[in-house]
Amino acid sequence: MSGQRRTAPGVELLSIGNELLLGETVDTNATWIAARLASEGIAVLRKTTVGDDVALIRDALAAGLRRCGTVICTGGLGPTPDDLTRHALAELYARRLVVDDAWLDVLRARYARRGMTMPAINRVQAEHPAGATLLPNARGTAPGMALADQERGLTILLPGVPSEMRGLLEAEVLPLLRERLRPAARFESRVIRTAGISEAALAERIADIAGDVAPLSLAFLPQGTGVDLRLTFAGSSAAAGDAVRSEAGSVLLDRAVARLSERLGHDVFALEPVDLAAVVGGMLRERGMTLAVAESCTGGLVAKRLTDAAGASDYVRAGFVTYSNDAKRDMLGVAETTLAAHGAVSEACAREMAEGARRAARADAAMAITGVAGPGGGSAEKPVGTVWMAVALESVTHVRHVIFPGDRSEVRERSAQAALDMLRRALAGTLHG
Amino acid sequence: MSGQRRTAPGVELLSIGNELLLGETVDTNATWIAARLASEGIAVLRKTTVGDDVALIRDALAAGLRRCGTVICTGGLGPTPDDLTRHALAELYARRLVVDDAWLDVLRARYARRGMTMPAINRVQAEHPAGATLLPNARGTAPGMALADQERGLTILLPGVPSEMRGLLEAEVLPLLRERLRPAARFESRVIRTAGISEAALAERIADIAGDVAPLSLAFLPQGTGVDLRLTFAGSSAAAGDAVRSEAGSVLLDRAVARLSERLGHDVFALEPVDLAAVVGGMLRERGMTLAVAESCTGGLVAKRLTDAAGASDYVRAGFVTYSNDAKRDMLGVAETTLAAHGAVSEACAREMAEGARRAARADAAMAITGVAGPGGGSAEKPVGTVWMAVALESVTHVRHVIFPGDRSEVRERSAQAALDMLRRALAGTLHG
Repeated sequence: MSGQRRTAPGVELLSIGNELLLGETVDTNATWIAARLASEGIAVLRKTTVGDDVALIRDALAAGLRRCGTVICTGGLGPTPDDLTRHALAELYARRLVVDDAWLDVLRARYARRGMTMPAINRVQAEHPAGATLLPNARGTAPGMALADQERGLTILLPGVPSEMRGLLEAEVLPLLRERLRPAARFESRVIRTAGISEAALAERIADIAGDVAPLSLAFLPQGTGVDLRLTFAGSSAAAGDAVRSEAGSVLLDRAVARLSERLGHDVFALEPVDLAAVVGGMLRERGMTLAVAESCTGGLVAKRLTDAAGASDYVRAGFVTYSNDAKRDMLGVAETTLAAHGAVSEACAREMAEGARRAARADAAMAITGVAGPGGGSAEKPVGTVWMAVALESVTHVRHVIFPGDRSEVRERSAQAALDMLRRALAGTLHG
Repeated sequence: MSGQRRTAPGVELLSIGNELLLGETVDTNATWIAARLASEGIAVLRKTTVGDDVALIRDALAAGLRRCGTVICTGGLGPTPDDLTRHALAELYARRLVVDDAWLDVLRARYARRGMTMPAINRVQAEHPAGATLLPNARGTAPGMALADQERGLTILLPGVPSEMRGLLEAEVLPLLRERLRPAARFESRVIRTAGISEAALAERIADIAGDVAPLSLAFLPQGTGVDLRLTFAGSSAAAGDAVRSEAGSVLLDRAVARLSERLGHDVFALEPVDLAAVVGGMLRERGMTLAVAESCTGGLVAKRLTDAAGASDYVRAGFVTYSNDAKRDMLGVAETTLAAHGAVSEACAREMAEGARRAARADAAMAITGVAGPGGGSAEKPVGTVWMAVALESVTHVRHVIFPGDRSEVRERSAQAALDMLRRALAGTLHG
């Protein structure tokens, strides 16, 4: 299936849907595919989004194929009339649409097993351009499809429902791509995740050694809640010696990651693309410790992030969302006098929340967050963004105070990250003051 | 600033950054801009993402300008060497980079106010192609810029940090675009959000009237947690009579929304793009009621969503994240015998969690979720995806049981949505059984 037009090593992604252009839906599919392909060393060279229009889809597919020979396209395979991707594919490759009777039987049998008759509307989901390979979808009614010729290259269509897209990519698409894309298309990258240090400060800390990473490339990725560093080794497109070069790339990456992360010390929380909450969870599990979380302004965000990880029940004993003063008093035992004298956004309240949560949940450690997320509730003394965080661990309760920039959602995200980072440093024994 | 090449009414978005192509970062900026422009009736015709490469950025900008005459580009304006967007802009418009001394003074003064010296690295952020208009950034060091000529059209560059991008778009870019794009570029759309009904069932429910919405277009948008319907009126590109047509469009939209939402009845939860949690919050506020939330498998997700809304403290009394059996017993008073006889994922446990949360928080209403989110923990009797949900309201506790498809994250999202929808229906008096 190698096409003469394949000029760049990698793939392009094409997302279909007016909802994406209207901002109604975040395109998490494209992000997920990109991350999954990156982990296989397959480069995504471009992402494009167009609306539900046959000509636009056809032309965007054609342009992507001309540039790199392989396009993965998501969306527009549903049963309703605004699902046009299969028509665009048929036009581009000049094929007619045919019905796959075997898939129709699969669909009818699935409905029958649930005691139902297949709605007539689903019949179009067995249609595909003649010559395309149907990729069976175990989780939904829209099959994926793959179509390739010498002139145009390979197009893969996947449904837009995330779980269906993921299942098909793993089972059907990755094996195809691993075979198709020669090692020349491969690259390798590593990430160094930091917390508690600004982009400019981070750049200055490593300024004298950043140039030494060549021929690797180094990128700074500010995340709003911290800064990631990414080191990339790009595979050469010369056919000879790729395997050797790729091995040398791994060694260079290992060396550069070790040197940079040594310089950055405790500000590094991970050498892989993993959430800080998962890192903290791993540290708790390693130490056999349990945690209680008391949240006011973050409203459950920290507990949600900690429990994103399977098996979090091993260390998350309990979370308290104490949005009101009454709840802080009743659930955590914050003193009425503390609330009256200092208010809920105060050092004393944060401290009592953490200690109360630890006591109430009979946990080994606890963290607490109380602040003004905005947009209302700010004052001259406690402007929007003012947040107090506390970590109770062993005999010490650490308390910290920050005024975070940003809107309500950003203040909440940054508070959650900063509090988790406090706990990380406390567990590592590197939190002072 | 009107360019001869402006062929399509609307704008294109261009996102810059290798991190987007590696799947390390979800492109929430493009989604946010698209939604904000849609609310102004300005169409986004295409979104493109390319990596940190001057030639790729330049060529993608040029292609977008050829297609529609206006491109908004985010990212690549930072102070580090991988920030190349201003260089691409200079190449495309054939201008040299010059330093804006006034902006340099602003930066230096900002650092000075904090008792610091501006890092030398930030100097490049005062560079821009000669003739570009600098758009001052109140929240960060990277200013936006706008550059237009007759031949190429208008390019707007914005920093990639979300809060900075948003501030600049509101203050500087929207006024520019409102003036530049004639009403011909305008369109109008409405959304009908549903919960608790599948896409196919929804399509069949409205099959006999769906055709009547013409000349409006109707799209089905499955969200994983429910299905949205979108109705769109596209403005005509004929110059004459646009105002009249646009008014007629609003009338058509109002009529179609009324007819479809009447047919769909209680399955509709909103006629605007708003989270179900915000709708439920509004119902609680209206009724002067308070809520307690008890979460096991969702681990804080429901509390987080409810408190995304400012002012949620008016109705969210407390949230309990009771991930362990001990926490369910200690914090909510779930009976030891219930846990022993039925397990934590059971009708009885969900019921006791809701009633216990209501009692413990002294709230008017409570909701509870307990289930197997996976990937581990499933059994033949209680497979992964098994979730029990309860809503305690007045003298009745409603309990419901669903086996959700999907991975851990999807089961959690769907459980949260289904439980919020139960509470919505209970508050509206339309939940039976």
